[in-house]
Formats: sequence, C-alpha cells, structure tokens
Amino acid sequence: MSIFGKQSVIDCDLHNEVPSLETLYPYLPDHWVDYCRESAFRGPDANDYPKNAPITARPGSKPERGLPGTDLELLRQQALDSADWQVEIGILNCAYRTASVHNPDLAAALATAINQWQVEQWLDKEPRLRASIVVPSQTPERAAKEIERWGNHPGFVQVVLPVRADAPYGNLRYDPIYAAAAKHDLVIGIHYGGAPGHPSTATGWAVSYLEEYAGMAAVFQSQVISLIVEGVFDRFPALRVTLIEGGFTWMPSLMWRIDKEWKGLRHNTPWVKRPPSEYMREHIRLTTQPIDGPAEERYLRQIIEQMDSDDMLLFASDYPHWQFDAAAAALPVQLEEGVLKKILAENARVWYCL
Amino acid sequence: MSIFGKQSVIDCDLHNEVPSLETLYPYLPDHWVDYCRESAFRGPDANDYPKNAPITARPGSKPERGLPGTDLELLRQQALDSADWQVEIGILNCAYRTASVHNPDLAAALATAINQWQVEQWLDKEPRLRASIVVPSQTPERAAKEIERWGNHPGFVQVVLPVRADAPYGNLRYDPIYAAAAKHDLVIGIHYGGAPGHPSTATGWAVSYLEEYAGMAAVFQSQVISLIVEGVFDRFPALRVTLIEGGFTWMPSLMWRIDKEWKGLRHNTPWVKRPPSEYMREHIRLTTQPIDGPAEERYLRQIIEQMDSDDMLLFASDYPHWQFDAAAAALPVQLEEGVLKKILAENARVWYCL
Repeated sequence: MSIFGKQSVIDCDLHNEVPSLETLYPYLPDHWVDYCRESAFRGPDANDYPKNAPITARPGSKPERGLPGTDLELLRQQALDSADWQVEIGILNCAYRTASVHNPDLAAALATAINQWQVEQWLDKEPRLRASIVVPSQTPERAAKEIERWGNHPGFVQVVLPVRADAPYGNLRYDPIYAAAAKHDLVIGIHYGGAPGHPSTATGWAVSYLEEYAGMAAVFQSQVISLIVEGVFDRFPALRVTLIEGGFTWMPSLMWRIDKEWKGLRHNTPWVKRPPSEYMREHIRLTTQPIDGPAEERYLRQIIEQMDSDDMLLFASDYPHWQFDAAAAALPVQLEEGVLKKILAENARVWYCL
Repeated sequence: MSIFGKQSVIDCDLHNEVPSLETLYPYLPDHWVDYCRESAFRGPDANDYPKNAPITARPGSKPERGLPGTDLELLRQQALDSADWQVEIGILNCAYRTASVHNPDLAAALATAINQWQVEQWLDKEPRLRASIVVPSQTPERAAKEIERWGNHPGFVQVVLPVRADAPYGNLRYDPIYAAAAKHDLVIGIHYGGAPGHPSTATGWAVSYLEEYAGMAAVFQSQVISLIVEGVFDRFPALRVTLIEGGFTWMPSLMWRIDKEWKGLRHNTPWVKRPPSEYMREHIRLTTQPIDGPAEERYLRQIIEQMDSDDMLLFASDYPHWQFDAAAAALPVQLEEGVLKKILAENARVWYCL
C-alpha cells in the first residue's frame, strides 16, 4: 500500500505523442499535406527522447503498434487508473517540436493541426485530461494567434514552450505570447528540451545525452533569471509559469544567489522592485519529476524547507518517459500530510484553476 | 573579535590586475610592442568587472592611481595583513582575458608577458603569494607551451581558465593543457568570466550584468558535467580542478541529478566508471566566495552536509572585487572547529601542495 492511499492526485506532466506526420494530415490544409508528401520533411529532426535510449520510455509503455504515449487506452491504464493513487486530472504536454521547424508557415500549420488533434483524440475522449497549447514560439505573433484560437476551450490550461529557445524568454520578442496567455488565464509551461540551433550549453556543444539531460537544469536556471530580470512579471503581473521536467533541487541556491546580486545591481534593472526570490514564489511553480534523487530522504525535506514555500511544487509523473515516477517514487519522503496534499493536488488545483 | 581568532588562512582567490597594456611592454617582444602602439588594440574588449558597477570593486580598494588590484602594498594591507585573521598564503588569479584575443600569436605573447610580470612584480616581492599561469587557452598547444615555460617555478600553483570558453572543457581539444598541468602537478583553476563569443546562456544573450553574474553558476555546472562525462579525469587521473567564484550551493543538486541519470545512461559513456559525484569529490574543489547568501545560517550547514564531503570547500576572499568576503563574512555560520580549519586552510594546503 502506498503512502498515498486514496489521496487525490493532479498529474502535471503526461505526454501524448504524435504517432507520425501522417496522423496530422486530416488536420492540415491541403497545401501542407502535399508539401509533406512531396518533400523530405518528416517532422522536426531532433528528438528529446531518442528511441533506443533507456531513459526514453518506461518499460511496458509501448503499445503493440507505434510509439509510447500514442495510445490513450494505455495511458488510462498506466497513468490514470493506478490502483495505488487516484488521478483526478492529468495535464498533457505534447512535446512535438514545432519551434524547430524552420519554415514558419509550416510550423504554424503543424501547431494548429496538433491542437485540433489534441481536442479530438484526447480531450473529447477522456474528461480527466487537460492539455497544453502547442505553438510556433519562434514566431511569437503567430504563436499568439494560436493561443487566441484555443484560449477559450476549457480543455486547454497551458501553453507549452521548450526550455531551449532562440532567445532567453525574458526577451521582449516573446511578449505577444505572454499577453495572449495572460488574457486567457493560461499558464506558460516551460518544458525540458528544444532544438533552437544554439549549442546546448553556454560554452558550446555537449556530446552525449547524459550531458544534455543533466545539463538541462542549467538552461532552466537561465530562463528563470531572464524572465525575472528582463521584467516579464512586471509587464504581465498575472502571468504564471510552470517549469516542467527541469528538476527543482537547484532552486534554493538560485534564489539565494540572485537575491544577493540583485541587492548590489538593482539600480540597473529598476523594474525589478522586489527580491527575485519573491517573484519566484509568486510566479513560478516546478514539477516534482524528475526528482534528482538526493542521497538521503532528509535532504529532500531540507530543499523544500530552503525554498521557503510549500506552494511551489506540483506533482508530475512524466508518463510514459522512463523518468516516469509513480507517486510513491516521486516523493520518497515522509512529508506532513498537509504538505503532501498540496504537492499532490492542491497546488496544481489553484495554479491551473481546476 | 572574529570567530577566526588566530586561525591560519589560505586565500584561494586574490586578484592582481594588469594596470594597462603599457605595463606589459617591457615583457613583450618588440614586434608586439610596435603592433600595440600602432594599432587600435588596447587589450581584450570585454571586462568581467565593469568599472562603474557597484559589485566590481570593494570600496577603498582603489589605489590613488590606477585600478583596484594593481597595487601590491594595498593588497598587503587589505587582504594579507588583516587584524582579524592570519593569511598564510594567498593565490593570485590574474583575470586578463588572453583567451579573448583573436590574434593567436599576440594572445600567446601577452600570456608570456603577464606571467613574467607576475613573477617580477608580485611573486618575487611577496613570499606569501602564489600565482596562476595565464594561458592562451583558445590555442591549447600554445597554452601547453606556456605551462611548460613556468611549470617548474615554485610560485605558480595553478593554470587559470575562464569558465566561459569556445567549447566545454571536457572536449578533447583541451587535452594538451591538462597533460601539461598534470605533468607539473598544477591545479586547473576555472574562474568566473570569459568572453569566447558564444552567448552567455544556453538560450542566447542576456542583457544585464545581473543576469550574467547570477547565471554564471549555470556555466560552471555545464563545465563540471563536461569534464566528467567527456572523460577528462579518466584520461588524466591525477588532474585537480578548482572552481573559483562560481558559488557552490548548487553542487549537491548537480551531484544528485547526474548520479541518477548516469545510472540509466552509463553504457553511452563507458569510461565513466563510478558515479559522477565520486569524481567531483575526488577531482573538484570550490572556493567559498561568493557565498550565495542563504537566508538562514542552518541552510549553509545543510549544503555542506549534502555535499557529503568536508574536503571540497576552499576559502577565498576575491579581493579586491566588491564580492570580497572577509573570512568572518565568507563563512557566516558556526562550523565545527575541525571543519572550519579545513575550509580556511587545510583543504587548500593539501590540494595545492603548499
């Protein structure tokens, strides 16, 4: 029996995978179907979850046909209907890389097709699911239009962006995305991955998936710094950002470091009126998955204490990726019942207005 | 009275600043003196410590003439002869950016000149000082020659590299530097800063010094990952690396994250035979400055506990930068006397063979 018993769970990171480019043909304008048939284009090249890497997919999550994450029935069985825990709501983050498609018209058409497919094949069929709007974030004006298209649909609760991007997300160019998200009360979900063309680290290209996976936490840190220091939350005071699959144990260190430097440099960024850690506690949430596996359970309790907030963590399983943590594994630590309740469901309920 | 009393201190990060390009003329070949006189070259453009930024220099550290860090007598008074603590040895890290000089011959000539200047103007005049060899790290073969030139001088204990670089430091191209350092039993000191031309974050250019300063911790994380995963410590088992002015409170999070991922991906990097955190504890040390200012003293004790090693931290003041922490401020935490002794002096004594 898990420690969770009949505790209600809101799972903030489930993945629905587009089975193939052909899946999107019914939702694409004829012109783009012709283009896809006649060109060598088979979708964005790079993939965050290389097919044969052992951390790509959870054993048993591959349906008889097709890729893990493509089968709603399997997702129901494995992620929603657990015997140990009650998933009340699950939020889908489709990781299709429209942001890496170089043709901006095709990127926008693919995003629209994916969102229509999400409505018809996932949201309409399973009332426990919510989804994230896929956008061509490399062209923020078009991304904003895509948000406008779906913003009133009750199934969409978030706009998903890859953490690796053309420019840091504090950059003014992204404001149309934030304006549209704020208007429709949608959360901005910044998710592990992306392939913008930049090297994967600030000092150049890494050579292995281990470096890329472990190093992605550093990219999340850069984005948090940028969002706050370049004033996004001052321009959009109601904006909420969830960091998904970036870990969270680095958060206290970043809070301390940036608060200290802000004291000495705040005159350069006068719009940042409060210590950056206050912006973090107010505007940022982090999913629990992947737990970075502290050597001792008490270290995880220390990290939660150091964040000085029990509002910031949102439970996520990352199903069907290998990193998938069932609730008991995701939080291998005895927490006060009130805190546990908040992390498993109540923080997400408030944050996503569920 | 400080908590340090008459405790002996080894300060692992003092800065000696080249007063001006002209200072180096006596140490440069005629050709390069002519070149500097006739061209617009006035030294590397960018500076980690912008002249008028308040976190650049400690109040009072500017001599009557010239820049902070250019005057040995002032450094003696302010950093070595403190009434509160006894500096036994101080290690100089000259941050002159030879690695950002695009002409490789000039870069190499400047490095040689700076090192000769360090010997004559600093090491020969103050027996408590040690120094770091400045190298043109963008051309590793020449950097190795520069290390050979000074490797037997007892005053040099380290080779200093900027944390921002052309490529991650695990890259094979840097092996000549590591081979030369290992041969002469010199530590590789990776220091805050650098201007290799890459954007300062993995997602593009940040716009303010606050972002760059707070974000530099992420660059250090990328370098640690690269050094271990790309096998530097397997190719050079005796190599020792000190991370200088990058903070350290992020270290436990990185240890947990990379150990966990290594378990799933180690078959891709078979030369990494032990959990990465073991390499960190064996091959990496971190200077204490800047303390990232945890909100509570007990959090700093927790971080040291989470690192699972009291060998890894080396005291540093970063004199004369504003970030300068006197010993009492650098470690605002009650530590066991044995641990305090190790951080203030004994860890560095062993590490640098002093």
